[in-house]
Amino acid sequence: MAERSLIFPADEFRGRVARLQHQMTADGLDALFLTSAADIFYVTGFLTRFWESPARPWFLIVPATGDPVAVIPSIGAELMGRTWVPTIRTWDAPHPSDDGVSLLVDTLCDLLPDTARIGVPMGLETHLRMPIGDYDRVAKSIAPRRFEDATDAVQRVREIKTDAEVEAIRTACTIAGRAFDRVPEFAAKGRPLDQIFRDFQSVLLQEGADWVSYVAGGTGPDGYTDVISPASDTPLEVGDILMLDTGAVRNGYFCDFDRNYAVGPSSDTARRVHDALWQATEDVLNALRPGMLASDVHRLLSEGLVKRGAQPGGGRLGHGLGITLTEWPSFTPLDGTPLREGMVLTLEPGAMTDQGRMLVHEENIVMRANGAELLSPRAPLELPELI
Amino acid sequence: MAERSLIFPADEFRGRVARLQHQMTADGLDALFLTSAADIFYVTGFLTRFWESPARPWFLIVPATGDPVAVIPSIGAELMGRTWVPTIRTWDAPHPSDDGVSLLVDTLCDLLPDTARIGVPMGLETHLRMPIGDYDRVAKSIAPRRFEDATDAVQRVREIKTDAEVEAIRTACTIAGRAFDRVPEFAAKGRPLDQIFRDFQSVLLQEGADWVSYVAGGTGPDGYTDVISPASDTPLEVGDILMLDTGAVRNGYFCDFDRNYAVGPSSDTARRVHDALWQATEDVLNALRPGMLASDVHRLLSEGLVKRGAQPGGGRLGHGLGITLTEWPSFTPLDGTPLREGMVLTLEPGAMTDQGRMLVHEENIVMRANGAELLSPRAPLELPELI
Repeated sequence: MAERSLIFPADEFRGRVARLQHQMTADGLDALFLTSAADIFYVTGFLTRFWESPARPWFLIVPATGDPVAVIPSIGAELMGRTWVPTIRTWDAPHPSDDGVSLLVDTLCDLLPDTARIGVPMGLETHLRMPIGDYDRVAKSIAPRRFEDATDAVQRVREIKTDAEVEAIRTACTIAGRAFDRVPEFAAKGRPLDQIFRDFQSVLLQEGADWVSYVAGGTGPDGYTDVISPASDTPLEVGDILMLDTGAVRNGYFCDFDRNYAVGPSSDTARRVHDALWQATEDVLNALRPGMLASDVHRLLSEGLVKRGAQPGGGRLGHGLGITLTEWPSFTPLDGTPLREGMVLTLEPGAMTDQGRMLVHEENIVMRANGAELLSPRAPLELPELI
Repeated sequence: MAERSLIFPADEFRGRVARLQHQMTADGLDALFLTSAADIFYVTGFLTRFWESPARPWFLIVPATGDPVAVIPSIGAELMGRTWVPTIRTWDAPHPSDDGVSLLVDTLCDLLPDTARIGVPMGLETHLRMPIGDYDRVAKSIAPRRFEDATDAVQRVREIKTDAEVEAIRTACTIAGRAFDRVPEFAAKGRPLDQIFRDFQSVLLQEGADWVSYVAGGTGPDGYTDVISPASDTPLEVGDILMLDTGAVRNGYFCDFDRNYAVGPSSDTARRVHDALWQATEDVLNALRPGMLASDVHRLLSEGLVKRGAQPGGGRLGHGLGITLTEWPSFTPLDGTPLREGMVLTLEPGAMTDQGRMLVHEENIVMRANGAELLSPRAPLELPELI
């Protein structure tokens, strides 16, 4: 067999399903109906880059008791057959007039009573990965069974990572850490940013990433104006700050952290802001405890920056992490999600420099009973300089 | 500026909008409401890997007359501001109780009359990239304006590539072609498949890919059982066929083709099936004309395989290509989409060998008035052998 086997033992997935079922029972749901790559991977271990093709929908039903049932395109039968999921129904997709709809309706009606309340993630940070026209058709056909919002049921379970998940994320972080250490090999004055992005992705792969789902960054004198743009071919210049940020993937789990480098010598401004970001992060690494709220982290990071003379950047200052590049909660003033043991989180303070530029700093942690444990190798206190 | 500017001149995008508006008028639609990375990139040129984060929805309204209006998270204001889109409204996302909903409702109501019919892609190969709970809230709030299916309006326009798009896809194909030529540098007897996948991605980046959104493949004696699995660490053995398939991206446009290699010496079976796939593809390259249907291509490829003693694989035998790894139509017996000049398509015949194994062959073409023009460098007729 040249294909990879299941990443975790079947018991890992059985445990996840047991926790989802416990939550479903608490919420009065008879099943979950899942369509996203992340939710389906979480339950089944079905890992493929084939999600990149929007052509076909994939369905998973997790009843409140019993094993999950996959209703999927036949092209996935072989790979799903190597997961622990015992029941797999397939159709030949894409089908122009019935792309799994009748098979899905039949399966839901076979499995679930007329009175069933079927949970679908409908809230913040969710998408339904199937045509909404077909979703509406299914909803009508399964009545009086009905779809209800199950965002909480899924998120309260998925946000607590198992030991196996924490180790998978730690592995991704370690790979990225080694790649960040090698940035001086390919980033220097005169080197164009787009080539640096390509080299950084190559090095991530060399260091063990299975694939690199996300690389972003920015550069400019003493900071950057934007952190989501593709790279241009502008060469690095003396006085520039280079930031690289990555979501590298290993065994289906992401890291998400960045590093800053000065094309030396660095200015006092850049060093001062970098120091404030590092120290504010250090404060929070020491202060974090289960029971705090997501909004508390935003406040602590902001206060840590302000007391060191730095101006906090807008937007969220960190978030959850795991099967996707970003997960809930968000470190904003408005997010009241309680932080719990087992959550994997990013601390991502940003600070404004002059002329509307910014620096962003990021680390990945897991919340333990007694506080934060770093998963990313800690950034250096001193802003590193490229030659 | 370290950030990349708009990939095409503004007139490219104005032309696309004019064609969408022409189609909207024909379909009696007053606007399009777009949420997917592909649709928004198509209209605006807004290109970022930040879509990898599911945290925030992004909205674009294309009225039947006038310029598009972007309603987006403030983190995207800088990058969207560098596109040609004149009107950008932002909110601070993610917001736990109103994640752009009220801003979107206000914008739709400002722009469009009470009677407006607003097109949303709801059909095959579409997804709504926003929480469906919020979509339902928007739909209720904008009444009597209403959402209607606009899959055809978008697909009939997007499927005809402009010259600039064809050249972008050709560039991605050329990059991948150079990477396939280098496969013998890193793939050989004894080398594990997962390392081959990593090296292949590195080489794609070295040859000019901005990023590698898709790599798949398979290996096994005289063929493979599956084409969507991640790679295992199993080493290549003599007699194995190695297939690598990639969707490498340059300037936001994909290639999607594969190549097969024998870990030599290859068997008669493998050579015979590879020859049948190559010849069946050649038949279709010569026969394709605008006005044929997608189902005709399936039939021609199947007939070409059968007459050479090969058994066609199940599933579709090719598809559209462009801004995403796969686009409509599908070369299946059921897809009646007419092929038109300017479509970019993949020819992807698969054939079964013994023991349930298969070989898959793939090329990328653009449909011209007088027939198919290859965009991928043609695969060698002789199955290449790795040492």
